Formats: sequence, structure tokens, C-alpha cells
Amino acid sequence: MKVSPLAPRVFSALPPMAGVELAGAVCGLKASGRPDLFVARLAPGATVAGAFTRSLCPSAPVDWCRAILKHGRARAIVVNSGNANAFTGKAGDRTVEHTVAAAAKLVGCRRDEVYIASTGVIGVPVPQDYIASKLPGMMKRLSPGGWDDAAQAIMTTDTFPKTAIRAARIGGTEVTIAGIAKGSGMIAPDMATMLGFLFTDAKIPAPVLQKLLTRAVDDSFNAVTVDGDTSTSDTVLLCATGQGPKHPRVADAADPNLRDFRRALTELAQDLAIQIVRDGEGAQKLVTIEVTGAASRRAARRIGLSIGNSPLVKTALAGGDPNWGRIVMAVGKAGEKADRDLLSVFIGGVKVTENGQLRADYDETAAEAHMAGCDIRIGVDLGIGRGKSTVWTCDLTHGYIDINADYRT
Amino acid sequence: MKVSPLAPRVFSALPPMAGVELAGAVCGLKASGRPDLFVARLAPGATVAGAFTRSLCPSAPVDWCRAILKHGRARAIVVNSGNANAFTGKAGDRTVEHTVAAAAKLVGCRRDEVYIASTGVIGVPVPQDYIASKLPGMMKRLSPGGWDDAAQAIMTTDTFPKTAIRAARIGGTEVTIAGIAKGSGMIAPDMATMLGFLFTDAKIPAPVLQKLLTRAVDDSFNAVTVDGDTSTSDTVLLCATGQGPKHPRVADAADPNLRDFRRALTELAQDLAIQIVRDGEGAQKLVTIEVTGAASRRAARRIGLSIGNSPLVKTALAGGDPNWGRIVMAVGKAGEKADRDLLSVFIGGVKVTENGQLRADYDETAAEAHMAGCDIRIGVDLGIGRGKSTVWTCDLTHGYIDINADYRT
Repeated sequence: MKVSPLAPRVFSALPPMAGVELAGAVCGLKASGRPDLFVARLAPGATVAGAFTRSLCPSAPVDWCRAILKHGRARAIVVNSGNANAFTGKAGDRTVEHTVAAAAKLVGCRRDEVYIASTGVIGVPVPQDYIASKLPGMMKRLSPGGWDDAAQAIMTTDTFPKTAIRAARIGGTEVTIAGIAKGSGMIAPDMATMLGFLFTDAKIPAPVLQKLLTRAVDDSFNAVTVDGDTSTSDTVLLCATGQGPKHPRVADAADPNLRDFRRALTELAQDLAIQIVRDGEGAQKLVTIEVTGAASRRAARRIGLSIGNSPLVKTALAGGDPNWGRIVMAVGKAGEKADRDLLSVFIGGVKVTENGQLRADYDETAAEAHMAGCDIRIGVDLGIGRGKSTVWTCDLTHGYIDINADYRT
Repeated sequence: MKVSPLAPRVFSALPPMAGVELAGAVCGLKASGRPDLFVARLAPGATVAGAFTRSLCPSAPVDWCRAILKHGRARAIVVNSGNANAFTGKAGDRTVEHTVAAAAKLVGCRRDEVYIASTGVIGVPVPQDYIASKLPGMMKRLSPGGWDDAAQAIMTTDTFPKTAIRAARIGGTEVTIAGIAKGSGMIAPDMATMLGFLFTDAKIPAPVLQKLLTRAVDDSFNAVTVDGDTSTSDTVLLCATGQGPKHPRVADAADPNLRDFRRALTELAQDLAIQIVRDGEGAQKLVTIEVTGAASRRAARRIGLSIGNSPLVKTALAGGDPNWGRIVMAVGKAGEKADRDLLSVFIGGVKVTENGQLRADYDETAAEAHMAGCDIRIGVDLGIGRGKSTVWTCDLTHGYIDINADYRT
């Protein structure tokens, strides 16, 4: 598999984090023989927050995680790639139960402190003890520096592993947030993402952590799209070990001491989410869509996603065609308030339309030059209100069809 | 342009209809020099019903037609291809005004009896008198047998002209319904379609006609999708000349005397709508998705469209891959009530899943053989209620990207 041309030039090599040990290895679920099992062990007392797919046919692991989230504590995360354990009936539920029981016994924790995620082919049951039987070996491999192995082990059609790290101050204390993610196709908003696992050494109570995660996910994983298809397995977890440097106690997500942490968490989540778009199946261009002047923030998001999911916009992008008419089409179909005569479209920062039509002095040369690059910026100003939102997408190319017309066979 | 492999084997050659004269010709809006202007003249007293795009950035012609529809009478229809007259500001409105005024004068009717539609490139104004100046010549070409020329003149990326005809009884009298349509890309539901012009020689008051059309459109043009992108120009008109054989008077859409007419109208509209899918950009397979057992009819439609618009389902179809897991994914993301353990998926009539998983005796050979054909049937039974709906779509192929990555240049 060729690495995406949009892959980051530099991969973040993550340093060890107090309270987190990780391992990634081959467990045999991928026919390719590549790594497909990731385990994380967290220090006692770690809190957890989660965001999951809104699919109404979620996978067995998603059902499990959602059910235990109210406890708010995590000691272990077990993730396999190569098989989604989705639409596998009662057999899928049993595989989760056996995996959880084995992990809880090995780690010495409650079962509702073991989180599970699976990604890969839908509808093929995994024998109930298969993953459980691999866990004793995984426990021996756990190390504080296992980030790279972990990021590799959760990949499916991904062409590069996705990691990110940020420092944040809580009060005067510097803490760390780090994370890994995977995703390339079946990526759509209004959900978590494929899989994202974020960790911090800060000490944050679960209810506060959940509020912070929900907000960060909304502006990151929920604001990207590759193909508008929502997975059955999307899962983002954020674990706080509380094992880092001592910082002022935080009991409320709105605490001013958390301002920098909120910024850093959103930045980290956006970093990972945009890496997923950069690795979008067949992607040749990363596209940032900035919608402003909409009736509301929600309206701006819906308009941005309507543009970002439009096959006609995305194929025009693939062709390097500054086809602003299709952008107008996508604004029109979004179902949100729009007025032809107030609407402005920008390509690469150049204003293309004015008063409901092409600007008289519009020179397509600049827009064409911008579209020939691989980092495209589209702007839409509705001229109606103050709602704004940014959405990231990629182009729709022959590569997407090559990958997906023959994924299973 | 190669004709779609899914084109009907036999083209309906439509006979003259009392009260309808048609012409199609080259007016110079298409760079290719192919026919691009269609005019229909209707006998005095003809009634009209219409359905239009729900885009909030509609074209100037759509704005015009919607404004005059309440009058319920039509004497002329003027349609150009090659230019959508959408997002052309006040200049676009003026082009419509001049065209309408010229047509009204030539036909000898009120301006609110002249319907306009335009399809083609968005955002390029047509000089205000350009189409008007072509109308005197078009009037001389009008003939009762001009159906083929008309169907040719409204094509854009279409690879074949689309016509259909049905007979219907009103009371004991046989009347005729005939129509033409165009469309290939930017085809999405919840709208009219690209363009469809239906005619009957029956005598039906405008309010009754409107109810009949709305119902027929919902099960036909609104139930097809090529790419989920809704045009700024979608227009379907149904004109009733009242010049056919005398039939019992009808004053109510629910009149039992209209039962057969309702059936025939829906059949005709479905025939044209399915021809549009058969000519879907790059389409190699026609796909019929039958959803049953949903919580409501609306839920069934939304689930059907979620499957029919999913890039992952459509690329699997292109690859001949009976990837039922992606069908489950698309059911799950539709946002309508679903229960994994009650859901059944059928491919080519063969039941694939049961009790939330693959059937133990499932043999993929039959599904693969069915998927290798070009007339694919997908069935989904939710097992929850009595809601059902049928949706038609096509596969997503390299051809779609070839066509759309380089449409303007």
C-alpha cells in the first residue's frame, strides 16, 4: 500500500506518559499478517470519557463501551483491527464478554473498567476465546514507549499511523495529552470517528473529562468527512491517568484553569482528525471548508458538510476544477437558510462571487493555480448571521473506487 | 459519448397528442453544437401542475415557474440545455423575463402561462435576448410529432433521450400520458428531478392535476438517486390539454374514475425516473432497493436512500462484491429505527442475514452470480413495522469520476 501523498512529513514520536503502558502485535486476524492487536494498561484511578458512533446498528464493542461508560474508570483498552465484530449477533457479544473477562483478570480490575474496540470487516464472527487467548502474551509486551506499535496495530486501509501530542497548562503545571487514531474510509461526521485513543497524565474527574471530550470531538472528529459513510464501530476514548505533575484540582469543565487544556485537547483531536482525512481513501487533496455568516453554528456545519460530502464538488476537486457552481449547488441542497444575492464563495482566499453571480473582474487563473495544489481552501460566507464552522474533507478520485470496489476479495 | 450499457433496448416513439406541438433545435448554447432548445405549445385551456427542486439556491427559471404555478394554466414551455441560468444574479432574472415576454407574444397568451426551464453549467449568464431571439424560428418548427427532437434538445451529459408513454382509462374512455425527461448526474431525491415534461390529452383541473403529480413524483423522481446531489434546476411539469376523447368529468384527485390514471401516471413517471438512473453518470448497474418492515413509509424511504447514496455500497456494487456488511452500515447510519437481531438483508432474492448475523447456511456463490449482472436487487426487511419503499440507484464507477473531474474543461 503506497503511503498517502498527503501524509504528514514528520511523524510525532510520542514519549512515555506516566500511568500508560501500551503494546501492539500480530494476533492473526488480518490475512496480511500485519499487526492487529493493541492493548493499553492504565494506572489505578484513571478516569475515562468516550464518544461513539450514532449508527443504530453499532458493533458489539460499541454496545459494551457505552454500557460501562457511566462508571467512568478505565484500567485496560483492548483493540483489534481486521475484524469489526459488527453484525455478528450473539456470537459477537460473547466474544466481547470473554475478552473483557480475560483482560480484567490479567490486569486485576473490574470488568466495567475494560474498554473494547474493533475495526475491519463487518459480519464475520471471531471465535469467542480467540482474542482472550492472545492477552497473556500482550501483557508481557506492555511498555510505556509502545505508542508506535499501538498506532500500527489499529490500522486497516490506513497508509500511515496517526499520532499526535500537545502540552497544556493546568494552573501553572504543564501536563501532556497524546493520542493515536485510525481511519481512512467509512469516515463521516456526526459521530466519533473510526477509532481514536487519547491519553493525558492530568488528574480530571470522569464527568469533567466527558464534557471536555464531547466539546473537542465536535470540532474535530465530527467535522471531518471522507465519504459520508458512518461506521458501526466509531469510538473515541480519552483517559486521564492523574499520574503526571501535581496541578490545581479541577472539578468543573468550565474551570478557568482548564482553558489551556481545552485548547490543547481540541488541537490534538483536530490534528488526528485531519490526519484521517489526509489518509482518506484515494485522497490527493486535503480540503478545508470554512463557512461563515450562516444563520447559526449548526447551519454553518451542515452547509460545510453538504459541500464536503458532495460527489460533484469532490470530483471537481480531484480534477483541479474551480467549479464554484457546484459549491453553490451544495449550499442550496443543505436545507439551511441561504440567499443567492448575499452569498460569497472564496477559492484559495480569492472572492469568486458577489451579488448572486460571478464577480465581473473574476480571473480564473488564480483559482486554477490554487486548485492544482494539494492543500485547498474553500470559503463560503452566507451573509446572513454569525454562525461559522470549519469542515475538512478530501477529493474523490479513482483511488477511492479502486480501494472500495474490491476491498474484501 | 458512448451510450449507457443500461439504456433501454427499445426507445418509445411517441405518437402525436391532441393539443401538444413540440420542437427541438440547435440555438448555440452548447459548445458541442448539439440541440439545446426545446419549445412546446399547448392548446388553449391546458392546465398544469409542477414539482420543483427544494434547493435553497434555485435557478431563475425555477423561481419563475414556482411564482406562476398558482394560475394553473400553461400555453408554452421553453427549455434550454447547455446553461442552467442558475446563480446568474439579476441578469438571470432578466433573461427569464425577456424569454417569457417573447414567447407570450408569439403564442398569444398571458406571461404567467409560459413555463421556463434551463439545465447545464451554473453561473454563466445568457444574454437577455438570446433565447427570445430564437423563438420565432422555433415556432415555425412546431409539430405534433416533435417528441424525439424535444427529448434530444434537453440532454446534457445524458447518453440517450428519455421518453415514455402509457394509456389510461378515465371512466370508460382511454386517454394518453406521454413524457420526456433528462438527467444523468446531480440526481438526488427529495426534489423533482433534473427535468421532466409530462403531457396528457385528458381534461383535468389544475388543483386535481397537482395532487396527482405530487403523488406520482414522490414514488418516482423522488425515489431515485445517482449521486445524492440535488440540482438547482429540477423541474417536472405535467400538462393536461383536455383535447383527447371525451371522458367523465373529474373534480377530485380521489375520484374512482381516476384510479387507472393514477396508476398509469406513476408508472410513466417511474419509467422516466428509472431511465435517468440507467443513464446515471458512469453507471454499469441498475440497482433496485426494496425496504420493507420499517417503522413507517418515510423511514423505509430514508433507509433506502441511505443505502442508495452510500459511496461504500455503490463501489461494492461496481466491484460485483455482495458486501452486505456495508448495507447494514448504511441502514445503521440512516437514523431510523433498526434492530440488529430483527434485520434481514436479501441480495437477488436470497436471504443473507438472520438473527443479527450471517445465515449459517449462506452460500455466497448465488449472491456473487447475481452481483455480476447489471440488474441488481437488494432487499432489506427491518422486521419492525409495515413501512415500505422502493428506491432506485446505480453503482459508483471510474466513469463517474472521469465525467465529473473534467466536466467544464
